[in-house]
Amino acid sequence: MPGIMEDPVAGGQDDQAAGRFARMWDELAAIGDGGARGYRRFAWTAVDLELRAWFRAQAEARGMTWERDRNGNEWAWWGTPGPDAVVTGSHLDSVPGGGAFDGPLGVVSAFLAIDLLRERGVVPERPVAVVDFSDEEGARFGVACVGSRLLTGVLAPEDARALRDADGVTLAEAMRAAGADPAALGRDEQALGRIGAFVELHVEQGRALVDLDAPIGVASAIWPHGRWRCTFHGRADHAGTTRLSDRHDPMPPFAATVLAARESARRLGALATFGKVGVDPNGTNAIASRVDAWLDARAPDAATVRALVAEVTRAAEDAAAGHGVRAEVTEESWTPVVEFGTGLRDRLAGVLGGVPALPTGAGHDAGILSAHVPAAMLFVRNPSGVSHSPAEHAEPGDCLAGVRALAAVLADLACR
Amino acid sequence: MPGIMEDPVAGGQDDQAAGRFARMWDELAAIGDGGARGYRRFAWTAVDLELRAWFRAQAEARGMTWERDRNGNEWAWWGTPGPDAVVTGSHLDSVPGGGAFDGPLGVVSAFLAIDLLRERGVVPERPVAVVDFSDEEGARFGVACVGSRLLTGVLAPEDARALRDADGVTLAEAMRAAGADPAALGRDEQALGRIGAFVELHVEQGRALVDLDAPIGVASAIWPHGRWRCTFHGRADHAGTTRLSDRHDPMPPFAATVLAARESARRLGALATFGKVGVDPNGTNAIASRVDAWLDARAPDAATVRALVAEVTRAAEDAAAGHGVRAEVTEESWTPVVEFGTGLRDRLAGVLGGVPALPTGAGHDAGILSAHVPAAMLFVRNPSGVSHSPAEHAEPGDCLAGVRALAAVLADLACR
Repeated sequence: MPGIMEDPVAGGQDDQAAGRFARMWDELAAIGDGGARGYRRFAWTAVDLELRAWFRAQAEARGMTWERDRNGNEWAWWGTPGPDAVVTGSHLDSVPGGGAFDGPLGVVSAFLAIDLLRERGVVPERPVAVVDFSDEEGARFGVACVGSRLLTGVLAPEDARALRDADGVTLAEAMRAAGADPAALGRDEQALGRIGAFVELHVEQGRALVDLDAPIGVASAIWPHGRWRCTFHGRADHAGTTRLSDRHDPMPPFAATVLAARESARRLGALATFGKVGVDPNGTNAIASRVDAWLDARAPDAATVRALVAEVTRAAEDAAAGHGVRAEVTEESWTPVVEFGTGLRDRLAGVLGGVPALPTGAGHDAGILSAHVPAAMLFVRNPSGVSHSPAEHAEPGDCLAGVRALAAVLADLACR
Repeated sequence: MPGIMEDPVAGGQDDQAAGRFARMWDELAAIGDGGARGYRRFAWTAVDLELRAWFRAQAEARGMTWERDRNGNEWAWWGTPGPDAVVTGSHLDSVPGGGAFDGPLGVVSAFLAIDLLRERGVVPERPVAVVDFSDEEGARFGVACVGSRLLTGVLAPEDARALRDADGVTLAEAMRAAGADPAALGRDEQALGRIGAFVELHVEQGRALVDLDAPIGVASAIWPHGRWRCTFHGRADHAGTTRLSDRHDPMPPFAATVLAARESARRLGALATFGKVGVDPNGTNAIASRVDAWLDARAPDAATVRALVAEVTRAAEDAAAGHGVRAEVTEESWTPVVEFGTGLRDRLAGVLGGVPALPTGAGHDAGILSAHVPAAMLFVRNPSGVSHSPAEHAEPGDCLAGVRALAAVLADLACR
């Protein structure tokens, strides 16, 4: 254990750990097609079941107790499952066109950190668990962190069961097709009550650590953020025969709204993104009857996000009115600011020799859990600064630094 | 025959013809789901095969000779198939979310006009044929009038075979799956050589006949028009963590291009429409890596269309450059202006007692054929002025006026 603690972040190259990391990484990377277009690891698909099987195999290979909880989250226990556990992990699902690191790095690092502790003969005084949260990205059913939201009761089970994917399949149907029981969904006192502390390791999704020249950081806060569906109701018509003045074309007001959102975000110091659009009927020579577009908005504080959304809504309504179109803006999700508790965060930073603390605009299961149990996050430097893309990356040396840092944190939390 | 010729347009209500029209119409309307979202009758799908079977059954019920030509167009012959034929008809496929009239009205009216001539004892001096052109809308493979373009050699068979639908299925694969032979595609001298004249009846796709208070009109010209694919190449990234200044987001330049196209069209007296958009990866919390959008542009003359497309291209490139995005504008189809020959057009207008002549912005198989054989069009009034939408409509009385007008035209062309 002294070896881990001495220089947990910058420690010398550990060939054995590097080889183990590379093997696990390659095995996991092969699940789903992660080519130039990126991963598409959506909840309760065949690929998701492969990822879950991989997780279970990792647990069993280590003699850890595997469990799936009522909400589809997978657990691997070092020691007897029980209260006051030190839990680490992340998720294995991805956005469409996702990279290899967002999620999987936290799960792989969790297993490898435990390997490291066991090799060093560490005997934890409380249970240690690795968790793989179900459907973190929300790529299929439109709501993020479904597994942790259900676990904590933030998402009502009846609302979750009724979520639909792009093909109209409900989450309940998808779970049943995957051999899981949607009737069991809901706040899980037992699973939640066992978490003494949760630490999620995650690839950084920006350039802060690059700028700070630091391989590892801790999270200070998660920006408040949400999703708004902007629907523009127009009228289908022939693109070749309908005078401009006779049109009720939803496309120009949608376009005006995209530009207004970008301008509002710039002025308010916020982020606004339209990354998902649906056009009906989506024919080359047909004026659209309807455009649905999703606004993702984030800022350091809730008031700024609300101001942004109000401006975008007004812009959408104004632009729509000018085209005989009706705009409708609906909040689909809202996640308040998460300020990670300073107690746990400072303890981590201290164990790691004073690594920097940074905020992030990305939601995480750790953010959901933080309202219920002590939670913290470790970030691993990402030289591309890019995520949700095949370009997201972390250097092997930084990944190993992450494993060592996580091991040090787990040892500190589980042995004192 | 005098009965037909006397008052072909405004003739009194014919209960028998009305009942026959209603029965055929209802039968055809039941093929494919034409509910509130409209028809989706795409080429070489199961629904298309049902429509083709309906056509064949109509031919056989009348003792007409049924044929499918090398390019998938269906023919029904009154008299022995041969040269100098008077051909009428239209198409049975639809855009996504299409109405019931665009295409089918011309096919139903063709059969009913022949019924009317036979009842009146008309004996044509040359063959008369009804044609159902394959894949007129181009909704599935992106190129319109595939059947008539192949027949006339305007579309090369190797280019047609390689066209792909949204699922990546080629036209060749779709034809084979539907039991047709893509190897046979190509200019068909025999089928083309038999057409002495072609008259296509079609629901009007604007309000001109409403404004003129006329149930029937003839086409003067089809505006030149084309489709341009506008691709904005950006970089996928996380919507919650990527600073605005670090983004290569293709959505804002696409939006700017939509607004620029609308403004150019207004200023130039043209039409410009973006009705089809594809976003990759299309995730709510992912900045898009790429947006594909299709510009449909039309104007009374080619120079205006070209000027419009040049302006839109410049706007796309300028907006893209401002966002670190690359814009690419590619012509996918171009149809020159069609001036229907005045000889045939004036003859029709004369037979029909001087009905008005009007231009249209919509492409038609008659426009493709007009470069090769004498071709003309009849329009039937559309009180909604709307088309490519479930709202497109023609009153029963106007539909019967169309049948009578077409019968008069066929009698004139086939009996003199």
